[in-house]
Amino acid sequence: MAAHATAENIKDVEQRIKDWGYGVNTIYGQERTVVGAVGVPEADKADYAERLESLDYVERVIAILRPYKFVSREIHPEGTIIDVKGVKIGGPKIVFMAGPCTIESYEQTLDTAKAVQKAGAAILRGGAYKPCTSPYSFPGLGEEGLKILKQVSEDTGLPIITEVMDPRNVDLVCEYSDILQIGTRNMQNYDLLREVGLARKPVLLKRGMWAKIEEWLQAAEYVVLGGNTQVMLCERGIRTFETHTRNTMDLSAIPSVKQLSHLPVIADPAHGTGRASLVNPMTRAAIACGADGLLIEVHAQPDKAIKDGAQSLNHEHFAELIQECRPIAQAVGRDI
Amino acid sequence: MAAHATAENIKDVEQRIKDWGYGVNTIYGQERTVVGAVGVPEADKADYAERLESLDYVERVIAILRPYKFVSREIHPEGTIIDVKGVKIGGPKIVFMAGPCTIESYEQTLDTAKAVQKAGAAILRGGAYKPCTSPYSFPGLGEEGLKILKQVSEDTGLPIITEVMDPRNVDLVCEYSDILQIGTRNMQNYDLLREVGLARKPVLLKRGMWAKIEEWLQAAEYVVLGGNTQVMLCERGIRTFETHTRNTMDLSAIPSVKQLSHLPVIADPAHGTGRASLVNPMTRAAIACGADGLLIEVHAQPDKAIKDGAQSLNHEHFAELIQECRPIAQAVGRDI
Amino acid sequence: MAAHATAENIKDVEQRIKDWGYGVNTIYGQERTVVGAVGVPEADKADYAERLESLDYVERVIAILRPYKFVSREIHPEGTIIDVKGVKIGGPKIVFMAGPCTIESYEQTLDTAKAVQKAGAAILRGGAYKPCTSPYSFPGLGEEGLKILKQVSEDTGLPIITEVMDPRNVDLVCEYSDILQIGTRNMQNYDLLREVGLARKPVLLKRGMWAKIEEWLQAAEYVVLGGNTQVMLCERGIRTFETHTRNTMDLSAIPSVKQLSHLPVIADPAHGTGRASLVNPMTRAAIACGADGLLIEVHAQPDKAIKDGAQSLNHEHFAELIQECRPIAQAVGRDI
Amino acid sequence: MAAHATAENIKDVEQRIKDWGYGVNTIYGQERTVVGAVGVPEADKADYAERLESLDYVERVIAILRPYKFVSREIHPEGTIIDVKGVKIGGPKIVFMAGPCTIESYEQTLDTAKAVQKAGAAILRGGAYKPCTSPYSFPGLGEEGLKILKQVSEDTGLPIITEVMDPRNVDLVCEYSDILQIGTRNMQNYDLLREVGLARKPVLLKRGMWAKIEEWLQAAEYVVLGGNTQVMLCERGIRTFETHTRNTMDLSAIPSVKQLSHLPVIADPAHGTGRASLVNPMTRAAIACGADGLLIEVHAQPDKAIKDGAQSLNHEHFAELIQECRPIAQAVGRDI
Repeated sequence: MAAHATAENIKDVEQRIKDWGYGVNTIYGQERTVVGAVGVPEADKADYAERLESLDYVERVIAILRPYKFVSREIHPEGTIIDVKGVKIGGPKIVFMAGPCTIESYEQTLDTAKAVQKAGAAILRGGAYKPCTSPYSFPGLGEEGLKILKQVSEDTGLPIITEVMDPRNVDLVCEYSDILQIGTRNMQNYDLLREVGLARKPVLLKRGMWAKIEEWLQAAEYVVLGGNTQVMLCERGIRTFETHTRNTMDLSAIPSVKQLSHLPVIADPAHGTGRASLVNPMTRAAIACGADGLLIEVHAQPDKAIKDGAQSLNHEHFAELIQECRPIAQAVGRDI
Repeated sequence: MAAHATAENIKDVEQRIKDWGYGVNTIYGQERTVVGAVGVPEADKADYAERLESLDYVERVIAILRPYKFVSREIHPEGTIIDVKGVKIGGPKIVFMAGPCTIESYEQTLDTAKAVQKAGAAILRGGAYKPCTSPYSFPGLGEEGLKILKQVSEDTGLPIITEVMDPRNVDLVCEYSDILQIGTRNMQNYDLLREVGLARKPVLLKRGMWAKIEEWLQAAEYVVLGGNTQVMLCERGIRTFETHTRNTMDLSAIPSVKQLSHLPVIADPAHGTGRASLVNPMTRAAIACGADGLLIEVHAQPDKAIKDGAQSLNHEHFAELIQECRPIAQAVGRDI
Repeated sequence: MAAHATAENIKDVEQRIKDWGYGVNTIYGQERTVVGAVGVPEADKADYAERLESLDYVERVIAILRPYKFVSREIHPEGTIIDVKGVKIGGPKIVFMAGPCTIESYEQTLDTAKAVQKAGAAILRGGAYKPCTSPYSFPGLGEEGLKILKQVSEDTGLPIITEVMDPRNVDLVCEYSDILQIGTRNMQNYDLLREVGLARKPVLLKRGMWAKIEEWLQAAEYVVLGGNTQVMLCERGIRTFETHTRNTMDLSAIPSVKQLSHLPVIADPAHGTGRASLVNPMTRAAIACGADGLLIEVHAQPDKAIKDGAQSLNHEHFAELIQECRPIAQAVGRDI
Repeated sequence: MAAHATAENIKDVEQRIKDWGYGVNTIYGQERTVVGAVGVPEADKADYAERLESLDYVERVIAILRPYKFVSREIHPEGTIIDVKGVKIGGPKIVFMAGPCTIESYEQTLDTAKAVQKAGAAILRGGAYKPCTSPYSFPGLGEEGLKILKQVSEDTGLPIITEVMDPRNVDLVCEYSDILQIGTRNMQNYDLLREVGLARKPVLLKRGMWAKIEEWLQAAEYVVLGGNTQVMLCERGIRTFETHTRNTMDLSAIPSVKQLSHLPVIADPAHGTGRASLVNPMTRAAIACGADGLLIEVHAQPDKAIKDGAQSLNHEHFAELIQECRPIAQAVGRDI
């Protein structure tokens, strides 16, 4: 309650809380009074909070319970393991998902797929639908790109992950891809979240570049509530004032999410930093603090890539990266 | 070029730039060499920048031209005026768009519509599809809400604005609404932007809470490139470290956008601050620095609103707000 | 308490709270227990909060009372008015403090002082000690600059404001200046705050570019606790991801601080935006939302200024600014 | 140049650049003209940039050279190694600096010093002068704390690091401490930086919670320009919108600074996250991405610590931390 709240104001708030089906427990302090609402009625508490805050004699409403449930570790203490055609994400092996930012051609994709597979990657990534800040950028090959990915997947045996941006394309992408990627800009695209919640393919949900961890987990809750429990989370950098890197990679989000949730966590150091020279150290660090997998952009010739060349590794550098990371994985009791 | 770049490296970069159809102009400094690319070839320069940055002998690529064109004031020096059933947005009158956050019922909507119309609002706002951080919140009445809005619009003569979230619903919302609102979370939902670009209704594009002004203008460019030139921009607060307000309202974005672009600019002080007690001062300030209109949440009883009660004004307070704002509008040579 | 806290854990926390001299009031919810500490013992509650949070069975400690007292409006409902040689800051008149970023010479300072005085400024600003990001920049004239300021003050009758950066210089600056300015980088320089708390000159405390409003008010509390109650606060922009402006001016901080505190609030639009073309609209907006005064950089020839030319107005532009602002001031019931 | 710049405007800018002693090289594009300034005259280029930007026919000034010199790796390709009484910082061994946030007593300090030494720490940390957001918090024991630290250092042989906040105390702290710590709030306290630049003790410079990497390196340049080349940098988290952690630890700053500068880099995971449960994963990650040392808060009983209990480890947990980190250090070719 506000400092100027009267006894009548306090009674008014208590009555409202009772009317909504909560128990009431009021603490009278010397300078402030705190009215506690106890219990969990059917309807949504978030909206009640807003109503109370509209009263000028209410200073603040503080939520005690976390605003997500099914993704929380409290109700599911063991970590979730997602099985993608035999590749287990969230288990003892750290999973590398690697490949070109954008699918350019069958030959390019097959070439890079073989290179990353040989180096130790377990899943092939590649973009057929690309979110582009500029309307003048290349938006991806679309379904043709999906077909290339599928063909390369059959040729190599690598399962694939690719992004879906439009709720109208979820069924189409499900036909081709083994994992559905939700990009950072779509983390709170609720129609898309509901649609992938109905799909029967695992979902990789990137963190919105503006999203608090709590909001990210609520976005995952949308998908799980739809019936799709195979969700993994991907840290890919947040927006800050720093301009040396494209984003600021929030590695502390990895152990934080592992503590709060049972879902596997993947790191994307290329988008997290925007600089190829930082991909290796950030990959090592992500493994050291508990990431279950990595999403890495690899291109045969980054200086000829259609997109994201500045943050892509070439084939040799990717092979070296895996070599470098193996002892780190072992140092934390895992392997690649 | 990097400090360690050799004469050969410089030649290599010059050759690439020539191959892409640019002219080359190189400046040799004492410590760094700068290779300039002159001219505007057909293909996209953004991707070329990425390729060059992937070379370790290139330190940085700096774009000289702005990454948007049709929304820029350079090619359209006079401000755009959007006519919504006779209400002119971007002209000498400041336009208030007011109404409940969420459409709850016909009676509630009509009641508030009459109140805001009487007070001086020119357009009725109301949410039928609501983006909710929590999957447990009320998502709006959907098409039923649209029907209520349409009916109230016919009863009062007020044109309406409502949000569209899903590209599959653009046609449906166009049937009922006079302005299509794109919410902050969808500012970079490119499929939705492309879809409203094909619509023949004005679009209000909210700034992404993470978006730089340049990215916001690029999002508007998506819509305009689709053929829909009736775009207005809406500042609604950005994400910062400050926790006293829900967002930090970036009022300097209003004159900045007016300088860079010919599109009208609207301010949304309720979402910008999250506090009803800040709506009045921020509305006055927005008018003082050049806003063409305001988006204000009004509810007969904010403490009984389904959503966003904490930042809604009641009918009396809204009428007072308009009274307070009229002299400010006149002080900047406009009116309400 | 954490979800896994046992009855014993709860008792332990209750005992600690009692031992520190608080009353205890525990609320048992279905999923969480909340232990309330009631009363205000002598020692500092902040440190107690840290100790409790170190216990793994404590989930969060939430402070109900605000962490400042003497600067809060609760204990001092009327606004403070600071009298600087007859110029009243915080009263009905809006006070313009204008002058060059850096004192360059007597002639330059006198010339600009006369120009701003004629235009309507009531106080002369000017820097003798300059905080510079780069060690290669001009650090100001030091005491020589103070002498020039003092001389110009005597010649024109304008009181002066200048920055003090070093606790060793507080006495010296007090000899010359009528107001002591604490710059943004020193908002949490506690030794400096303590030193100006002992001075008998009004203090203008700029907001740290990283500081929450609550922290800013705590910094002001430092000064007031030292015995110096003549403190005014100055909003000058915060650090965000936006790069179009040098900082993001948080105008909502002005009415927020006016609601929370009785201290006068000044706005600094030049540093807040870093662009001369935004000074006018942001000054108008600051007045419209309740600022008690403005700090404006003015230079006879901004393109020849030693520092901050890009954000300085010339004499004519400053005169126009005041003309433009007068009707805004009147629209909010004040004057200049 | 701006789009609307005339031939005369371009000539004017070229003339100014020549007058300042630069060579001129102008690139004429189709939509913009770029005027290049070549060479490095004596005076400071930052101020020239500001002057040019004050001209309305100049759109932007872009610096090509980095704004620091002596701390840059370009002029000192091998990494600097700082020797503190035989402990080498920046060499193959990763150095743990551990101890209580605040010196409370001789017994407490000795007890923790012995525990961290046994576990593997090489340097003892402890605060005698504490920066406190709240004026009601405990400010540290001052010189008495320094004496305790010195005594414990003699008893154990551990060199010590402690913070200096006030330029008037630099000489005093130098008498007792082996390393001078500059806290985050003082990163741009230029009088303090100049003072420690004159000292003959190594300096640990924490990153300002608002500071870009470039500004941090400029602050280090201040110290080095004063003649003190023994500077190490410490990443301790930056201010972002995330509220789950106290700050967001920017681990990518570690490899970034190692690429840009020759100075050793230390990580402070307790302040970086504010949560004891994140100290271990963030310490492992910091080592994995190249940190040369760690600053860790350790207290015999964190729930009884005067300050920062929530982020302190107890003695056992610290010993476990070192055990956990050793294999990571070895995985990157180093040791503890």
